[in-house]
Amino acid sequence: VPPASKSGIKIISMNLITGRQEAPVIWRGPLVSSAIRQFYVDVDWGELDYLLVDLPPGTSDAQLTVMQILPLDGVVVVTSPQELANLIVSKAINMSTMLGVPILGIVENMSYVICPKCGERINLFGEPRGRILAEKINTKFLGSIPIDPELSAACDNGNIEDYSNATVQAIAETITDSL
Amino acid sequence: VPPASKSGIKIISMNLITGRQEAPVIWRGPLVSSAIRQFYVDVDWGELDYLLVDLPPGTSDAQLTVMQILPLDGVVVVTSPQELANLIVSKAINMSTMLGVPILGIVENMSYVICPKCGERINLFGEPRGRILAEKINTKFLGSIPIDPELSAACDNGNIEDYSNATVQAIAETITDSL
Repeated sequence: VPPASKSGIKIISMNLITGRQEAPVIWRGPLVSSAIRQFYVDVDWGELDYLLVDLPPGTSDAQLTVMQILPLDGVVVVTSPQELANLIVSKAINMSTMLGVPILGIVENMSYVICPKCGERINLFGEPRGRILAEKINTKFLGSIPIDPELSAACDNGNIEDYSNATVQAIAETITDSL
Repeated sequence: VPPASKSGIKIISMNLITGRQEAPVIWRGPLVSSAIRQFYVDVDWGELDYLLVDLPPGTSDAQLTVMQILPLDGVVVVTSPQELANLIVSKAINMSTMLGVPILGIVENMSYVICPKCGERINLFGEPRGRILAEKINTKFLGSIPIDPELSAACDNGNIEDYSNATVQAIAETITDSL
């Protein structure tokens, strides 16, 4: 039975199973794949609106297992505005295409920050280019998310569910509307 | 024979072997481990001052193989100033300790940005805490690196070797001096 967050979102993670948070789970691919399968099959999820699988970057065991064994509606690709990040993300997109998983759209994270003193918009990693990448691969550009120190603080203080932001909200609605 | 960068640094990467840069290398762990071994054993490195292995975050195949089969002098741990990042990094540190690999120190990346208009120092992910983490695990704190849009630009333009920064230089010297 998965534990729920304070607003009632059911969650499962290895972190909730290992006793000590700092204890590393030193597992090679087959065990990782087996855990992913069990998280899907053996957890009593009940009826869900959405099941979101948060994956690390890469095109190895975790991503391959998720794309092969879960009946996915699609993938939301998260990039940052650096050419190098776009290259890595292009690999992930090509992997999804090869495995027949639809791309729901691209989100550009860590796009910019607004200076709290003078209001200047600082492009942290150069000019935003998520839109260009989305056009290139013929998919939807969902939006640019700035770095917001309040978001990190809410996350670290366990109050992430109280955080709200118009851009993030709009992106979430576009995604859910497309499902 | 590994290709060399314009300043003569020998490099090997799957990206230099696969024909198309955007082509994903969809490999499960055993193939990843085998490639790491071959990059170490079968590449004609010649005599080297240092061999730097850049790893993604995690405690799975790539990290395990590097720690098990390469004769490492140590690990430089890179974190960012978020409690969540510190937790993930703590796992990697505990993995190194369990496998008998020394920690050379901790670098805090993406610590802050200096507003180009008003000079304000913006802590992007909250208060820096790399030093606290380093003290907690009894290791050296090597320094905080700000986000610098010029660094991203140099990277994307292929001029990363022309980039210089006093903080980064000092960190590199502390690391090499400790070897």
